[in-house]
Amino acid sequence: MKKLKKILSRFSLGVIFTLVLNNLCYAETTVSAEVSFVFNTFLFLVCGFLVMFMAAGFTMLESGMVTSKSVSVICAKNIGLYSIAGIMFWLFGYNIAYGIPEGGFIGKFVPWSDSSKLETGYADGSDWYFQMVFCATTVSIVSGTLAERIKLWPFFLFAAILTGIIYPIVMGWQWGGGWLAVRGFSDFAGSTLVHSTGGSAALAGAILLGARTGRFKKSGEPTPIRPFAASSIPLVTIGVFILWLGWFGFNGGSQLAMGTFNDAVAVSKIFINTNLAACGGVLAAAIITRLMAGKTDVIQMLNGAIGGLVAITAEPLMPSPLAAILIGAVGGIIVVFGTKLLLMLQIDDVVGAVPAHLFAGIWGTLAVPITNSSAKFGTQLLGVVSINAFVFIISFIIWAIMKNTISIRLSKQAELKGTDVSETGVIAYAIKD
Amino acid sequence: MKKLKKILSRFSLGVIFTLVLNNLCYAETTVSAEVSFVFNTFLFLVCGFLVMFMAAGFTMLESGMVTSKSVSVICAKNIGLYSIAGIMFWLFGYNIAYGIPEGGFIGKFVPWSDSSKLETGYADGSDWYFQMVFCATTVSIVSGTLAERIKLWPFFLFAAILTGIIYPIVMGWQWGGGWLAVRGFSDFAGSTLVHSTGGSAALAGAILLGARTGRFKKSGEPTPIRPFAASSIPLVTIGVFILWLGWFGFNGGSQLAMGTFNDAVAVSKIFINTNLAACGGVLAAAIITRLMAGKTDVIQMLNGAIGGLVAITAEPLMPSPLAAILIGAVGGIIVVFGTKLLLMLQIDDVVGAVPAHLFAGIWGTLAVPITNSSAKFGTQLLGVVSINAFVFIISFIIWAIMKNTISIRLSKQAELKGTDVSETGVIAYAIKD
Amino acid sequence: MKKLKKILSRFSLGVIFTLVLNNLCYAETTVSAEVSFVFNTFLFLVCGFLVMFMAAGFTMLESGMVTSKSVSVICAKNIGLYSIAGIMFWLFGYNIAYGIPEGGFIGKFVPWSDSSKLETGYADGSDWYFQMVFCATTVSIVSGTLAERIKLWPFFLFAAILTGIIYPIVMGWQWGGGWLAVRGFSDFAGSTLVHSTGGSAALAGAILLGARTGRFKKSGEPTPIRPFAASSIPLVTIGVFILWLGWFGFNGGSQLAMGTFNDAVAVSKIFINTNLAACGGVLAAAIITRLMAGKTDVIQMLNGAIGGLVAITAEPLMPSPLAAILIGAVGGIIVVFGTKLLLMLQIDDVVGAVPAHLFAGIWGTLAVPITNSSAKFGTQLLGVVSINAFVFIISFIIWAIMKNTISIRLSKQAELKGTDVSETGVIAYAIKD
Repeated sequence: MKKLKKILSRFSLGVIFTLVLNNLCYAETTVSAEVSFVFNTFLFLVCGFLVMFMAAGFTMLESGMVTSKSVSVICAKNIGLYSIAGIMFWLFGYNIAYGIPEGGFIGKFVPWSDSSKLETGYADGSDWYFQMVFCATTVSIVSGTLAERIKLWPFFLFAAILTGIIYPIVMGWQWGGGWLAVRGFSDFAGSTLVHSTGGSAALAGAILLGARTGRFKKSGEPTPIRPFAASSIPLVTIGVFILWLGWFGFNGGSQLAMGTFNDAVAVSKIFINTNLAACGGVLAAAIITRLMAGKTDVIQMLNGAIGGLVAITAEPLMPSPLAAILIGAVGGIIVVFGTKLLLMLQIDDVVGAVPAHLFAGIWGTLAVPITNSSAKFGTQLLGVVSINAFVFIISFIIWAIMKNTISIRLSKQAELKGTDVSETGVIAYAIKD
Repeated sequence: MKKLKKILSRFSLGVIFTLVLNNLCYAETTVSAEVSFVFNTFLFLVCGFLVMFMAAGFTMLESGMVTSKSVSVICAKNIGLYSIAGIMFWLFGYNIAYGIPEGGFIGKFVPWSDSSKLETGYADGSDWYFQMVFCATTVSIVSGTLAERIKLWPFFLFAAILTGIIYPIVMGWQWGGGWLAVRGFSDFAGSTLVHSTGGSAALAGAILLGARTGRFKKSGEPTPIRPFAASSIPLVTIGVFILWLGWFGFNGGSQLAMGTFNDAVAVSKIFINTNLAACGGVLAAAIITRLMAGKTDVIQMLNGAIGGLVAITAEPLMPSPLAAILIGAVGGIIVVFGTKLLLMLQIDDVVGAVPAHLFAGIWGTLAVPITNSSAKFGTQLLGVVSINAFVFIISFIIWAIMKNTISIRLSKQAELKGTDVSETGVIAYAIKD
Repeated sequence: MKKLKKILSRFSLGVIFTLVLNNLCYAETTVSAEVSFVFNTFLFLVCGFLVMFMAAGFTMLESGMVTSKSVSVICAKNIGLYSIAGIMFWLFGYNIAYGIPEGGFIGKFVPWSDSSKLETGYADGSDWYFQMVFCATTVSIVSGTLAERIKLWPFFLFAAILTGIIYPIVMGWQWGGGWLAVRGFSDFAGSTLVHSTGGSAALAGAILLGARTGRFKKSGEPTPIRPFAASSIPLVTIGVFILWLGWFGFNGGSQLAMGTFNDAVAVSKIFINTNLAACGGVLAAAIITRLMAGKTDVIQMLNGAIGGLVAITAEPLMPSPLAAILIGAVGGIIVVFGTKLLLMLQIDDVVGAVPAHLFAGIWGTLAVPITNSSAKFGTQLLGVVSINAFVFIISFIIWAIMKNTISIRLSKQAELKGTDVSETGVIAYAIKD
């Protein structure tokens, strides 16, 4: 370009040309629409595959947390639910969420199809992919809570309803420009929309399903009368690391764009805050359990990471690093005490998904106004209450109908034999040494 | 830019300048060659590392599927074969495939070296990397089928031949512009070129190697006379999730470009179809095994995912979402019945790789004309038959030569002790609780 | 654009315009500063999440290598150390390293904050993220060596010092433009800066901590008097595959840029060399153990991969593919003999991190001048000696102070019960079949 400018400056029009060229060649904030389109699409695809991999993270977390006679069914449930989510979100979900009228309640029951345009800023398919993996996350959350006593196919039926209808409705309220969005509700990547939705649906199911046989003494004391030991801590750990990895996609991709200086800076900030919140959650859980019980509870550290991640998900962009650490730390503390609360209430959440996803999600969403001045506490509360109430009630009704028709709980005999033997006929671990 | 245009419009030449600037600044479909180059290279690298990780997926799938006394050797085989593939594909493979004359049969036996040019559209090295991980996949497929009775080093020798010569020859026929390509054969990401090649080589080996001791009754009934329980279902499951993740790279990267609107839209569509086909495969296997056997077979669900993925690999771009689901579902069904077929034939495929990669690969390749009108059934059949016949026969000959010279099968004593003790001397699981 | 040119050629100024347009539209080596900024940031984020995932790789490698009664604590240590690293590198680390005066020794003790500018070429946050995950790697290396007998919280304290102060100081010497950088030391992605730093800190700890009870006979013979069997080879294997995957980010991201033809070519070359070096390490270890012991040691193959990767890390760009294979192969051989050396010295490195990270790191750094003519052996030696001496001595002092104040070693009773029972109270595997 320098050579060109030199040549041009010989012409009488040189001054003007040089001016023009200077501005064109060094117009440093110009990214063409097509380059932006590719960047944004790339962001969705990369962040999308990270979130997709969270399905594996949940599977490992849950496989490791349940007793060794219920692991194969966890695997079947998770590979199945992810498959169901993919099909249902294509069939109904996407257009229920995005086909919503402005300020409205629900969109259209039509399958998604590709209609990419340059003006949209990203490939239609990349957005579908990214939103689909979010959708799958909601039901991954449900899976673990209900482990070891729920029947496989009724669970799949619920998974289809949650991913095809319930979640997409809630998603439309906010991200489809529905009634919550127009009221100014703020939930950046879905502390409430995704995580509390999953947690509320799980809680409704856990209440109706009842605890695992022998999980609680009749007296109400939260002490197991037979062991329910986690089958594999390293599997739980790799599960959490995969989830942590996936969360960079979950929150980072929710910036929805990567094609400008500002977006690149924002996505980077989101990565940092997401990471620091998880760090805060882990260390808060470690310190608390060490101080309270004398031992450092590795399971609570791992769930503390999830709690921290869920908490920052509502607003991963605005907090300072220190604020992110603190928001995450409170998330970790909520997980520890939330777990105790459920035990006291004799609600049997096998993997601790309700404290990590529902309770920490509520905290994260209500905490948004602390760091984002455009969010208002009242509106945040409205969003938290309306979404959780809606999901909990609808889920409760569906679980109740299923309970009284097709039945949702394994026979006591089948449960004691273990879900692996009774449901899939495949032993999870066959290890001789 | 707006300011600039305002200033310029004051000049008498303003009209023309404004026209020019408008077009330059908003020339929305212009991506410079260098930006495209970077995008394409980035695509290869990102998709390449996803496919590289599939090596871990195969390792976990196979580790979980074999009995617990053959797991360490599976790990040794898989880390070893990936290493062999890397070196052989550099030494011979790349130029055997790409150094082929147009319409020809085989290229040159010279090592690859970097000769990146802007005109190529991507960094030479990124293409090598992407193609190398494909090459490694073929032999990963072989590894599982032959588990628990093959000797380690003869397997490594075969791995070197497959990745250094056999696969590159076949690859050149199509992707190097060889004789199949000029006839119009269509295999987008390698249902036949990669997956059936692996499957055919595995089948040849399994026939010559024979079944594991005690696997089949003499009568021909496919019932094991001693247990061959999968050692760890969660490891199989994380393996399948890793493969599923990797497949976004496998198929998505096979678009070979990401630098334009059209390519970004195409890669996105490929991600979606890849995902939906796997969903179809999982659910088809779940429903069929539930209906046929009363229990939902988690192993068939997991292999069903692979079957669906292999099936869509021949044409992941053209199908509608619904078509992708159906193509994948048929893939899943093929896995279930293909497994039964091999048992009836008393061919001992330890992990079910032949049904998932060979049979589903044949289906996927023959199904291309259904959704891609430029493909013809006759040509597809020609490609499927010629590649599989070539690979099967060559592999059979190599296995046979090895069998009669260095021997390929462990002694019965060594087999019964387990490959871990006899081959690597490292017990896979040492768990006391 | 063609249309525009046609229109313009009708004007009398057409000749000039066409000239200008030709150059603007086909200025093939022009990437705007903002597009470059996004590419570079994207590289940091993608490579950063790959390196982040290495934390999971180390966790699995170590979980599989320790005996089954010390696995939960390995998980607690690794999720904890990664969290500590994140917070400490934000609080002190980044500015200790980058706030260093030119040619100096140490930077400022102030927290990092975002100050992204277009001129920097990448988002400030993406660089912090990328450097933070490197920092975490150093202490991941330490974790495994000291397993099964170190107390959890003293380890966490050391992790905080290493990631907050020691590593950042060393990092500043080179990558912050400190005294080693101005002398021309060359360590592309940190064979010495990251890996040897971790290895030296681990070695100091292992010496002061002593071997596991019963690990060595008093006579000095390196034979265990009770079994210390690796608890799970497949977990070690997935750990190594994750590390291998992460290393593409580790070395590839260290190019620090992806926005031009040259950078894209360079990152691709780095991917290839990184891969080939690991291949070399695996196969060298396989061949050597097979020849020396009659069995192919899977653990040494897996550690050989790490040795190869560490060795190439000092210079992954300049070597030819063949040179990369050989550099990696020597790394693999060093791991095998380094492991023997430590056993002879009765230093108990549970996972073999010292041979793989310290010894192979020294080799890789000293080997840089072989392929990079701008590096000098003397300077390389200076860097290796000064960094390792500094880290070893400081670490030794810190471990010694901790040993004599808060104590770092579990009681013999606690050690024999296993760290899982004594430290976290959570059994790692509860498997009934």
